[in-house]
Amino acid sequence: MTHTLKHHWLAILAGTGLSAAALAWDALPLQVPVPADNPQTEAKIELGKQLFFDPRFSSTGTISCNTCHNLFLGGDDNRPTSMGVHGRTGPRNAPTVWNSAFHATQFWDGRAASLEEQAKGPVVASVEMGMADLDMVAKRMRAITGYQAAFARAFGGDNPVSIDNAAKAVAAFERTLITPNSPYDRWAQGDANAMLPNQVQGLLLFDQLGCTGCHQAPFFGGPNKRGGHFAVFPFHDGEYVGTYNLRADMGRHAVTGRKSDRHKYKVPTLRNVALTAPYFHNGAVPTLDQAVRVMATTQLNATLFEEEVAHISAFLNALTGEFPSIAMPRLPPTPGASIPTE
Amino acid sequence: MTHTLKHHWLAILAGTGLSAAALAWDALPLQVPVPADNPQTEAKIELGKQLFFDPRFSSTGTISCNTCHNLFLGGDDNRPTSMGVHGRTGPRNAPTVWNSAFHATQFWDGRAASLEEQAKGPVVASVEMGMADLDMVAKRMRAITGYQAAFARAFGGDNPVSIDNAAKAVAAFERTLITPNSPYDRWAQGDANAMLPNQVQGLLLFDQLGCTGCHQAPFFGGPNKRGGHFAVFPFHDGEYVGTYNLRADMGRHAVTGRKSDRHKYKVPTLRNVALTAPYFHNGAVPTLDQAVRVMATTQLNATLFEEEVAHISAFLNALTGEFPSIAMPRLPPTPGASIPTE
Repeated sequence: MTHTLKHHWLAILAGTGLSAAALAWDALPLQVPVPADNPQTEAKIELGKQLFFDPRFSSTGTISCNTCHNLFLGGDDNRPTSMGVHGRTGPRNAPTVWNSAFHATQFWDGRAASLEEQAKGPVVASVEMGMADLDMVAKRMRAITGYQAAFARAFGGDNPVSIDNAAKAVAAFERTLITPNSPYDRWAQGDANAMLPNQVQGLLLFDQLGCTGCHQAPFFGGPNKRGGHFAVFPFHDGEYVGTYNLRADMGRHAVTGRKSDRHKYKVPTLRNVALTAPYFHNGAVPTLDQAVRVMATTQLNATLFEEEVAHISAFLNALTGEFPSIAMPRLPPTPGASIPTE
Repeated sequence: MTHTLKHHWLAILAGTGLSAAALAWDALPLQVPVPADNPQTEAKIELGKQLFFDPRFSSTGTISCNTCHNLFLGGDDNRPTSMGVHGRTGPRNAPTVWNSAFHATQFWDGRAASLEEQAKGPVVASVEMGMADLDMVAKRMRAITGYQAAFARAFGGDNPVSIDNAAKAVAAFERTLITPNSPYDRWAQGDANAMLPNQVQGLLLFDQLGCTGCHQAPFFGGPNKRGGHFAVFPFHDGEYVGTYNLRADMGRHAVTGRKSDRHKYKVPTLRNVALTAPYFHNGAVPTLDQAVRVMATTQLNATLFEEEVAHISAFLNALTGEFPSIAMPRLPPTPGASIPTE
């Protein structure tokens, strides 16, 4: 290490000799939590993949889950806020779908308790997929005869094509979308060379500054050290609050009405965060370095040296995992006629 | 066959005993034409696949080639006309990209002579991907560092990232998008049971009515029997011309200025036509059956019995091929910052 240590934390850490084991730096589990009423099956996962990529469940026939949660990229759309039907934009940044199965609550404001519940939201949001209501979605699914067989294979029963079953299938597919074996994970499993020295330094700094108070290993999202999944953001004042308009959104308050939920958000995972610029609930911060600066000041009331920002960013880059190879789905054809579109 | 033969053609055909061999009903070739200056290579095809699925070369970061030429479906978007950036719609229906490598001319009006030339169009069309100009596209490609290595692998040289090379890569990928082994193809190769009896009857009717004057086997698109790739549509008058506003578009005339090119269009392939509703250059006709009726009256001045329509539709359904299994691309990440979007 040839750089000059400017900040007291770096000086402290240089002498700690902390090991991964001592700090319980675990690797990402390969098993995701699976609800008892929606076990994983091949047929369900395949159907969920089809639904995830199918644009015909948007009013215009142009927007699928993958439009904003792009699996070819970091599971998001790299836009400040997403663009749905008719070019409409919403108020919030699309969170990554990769590893979302590890989240105990969904959406920035935690208004869905499960992936199943989440899946029913965007399809009827006017600025996203724009369908009038879920009945219309079910009607379109039934109009595509190829889905009848796919739902029957996945769920059986007399009327397998339903919104609840569609949501279960999408959730089952999403539970396969995990990205293990990041440099961090390999380091955590004992490969001391898997992270570069500055990435290890970034990890230690990340912990000592208090980032792990909310973003704990191995998921680097909730739960925080007290078991909670939410945090007030921004917590401290400072120039960034105005620059990036960080208090315009009331966050979870809009869901619960509780005063204590003002500007409260789900703690998002930091896995693959290097791929998901721009940052925060409103996507106002364009770079990872700047996101690190904003978090340090607004959450920890700390101003970082540029070298520290660089170390932490380097560590965050070590959270980029390996993406599974997925065969493209074939979608059942639109039979006989086109689906009516706006 | 239990139905009643109402039309003279059916009566005639029932006694012909025409065999596939006698009529030169060939199966789709497995080799597509490849230009001498753009040979197929694995590196180029893989790069082309990435570019084809990458939405970052649209002004909003939301529209990729696959948005309107959806490979999960019939290679189009099942919309009357496509929806590009900001929800803008253009004047023409998206043609399928499947088997487009067999077309000798591209776009409905044949304004591109090759897939390479075609690929440069939609990216800068204001109602499609909406980029200001091709230089901006090249700038975005260069900003994604992962593409530098991919272009270098595919093309070598000092400055491999260029629009020309991107177009070559996309075209190389598109030359892999062929769908052989349709029921028709298997029938043409000697499996007499690959098509149902009414599909064979539809094929014979399709030929005897004169559809093969333009839509010849094995591609069922151009060239026609005199070697041409264009046809005036609609050719005859009739109620459908007004109903579907079929003469509002001047077709190839807008490209050449020639009076003889008024309302002239490329003869599109009919392969996978059952998957690509709605139909014609303006996407005004919602069903395949109705498209058959329209073609019979506007091009052949013939009014079909409903039974004949059903037979021809059944035959057209036999042109749905087998779609290759394709692994999803991983796109190189947006490095450090988000791509600026409108």
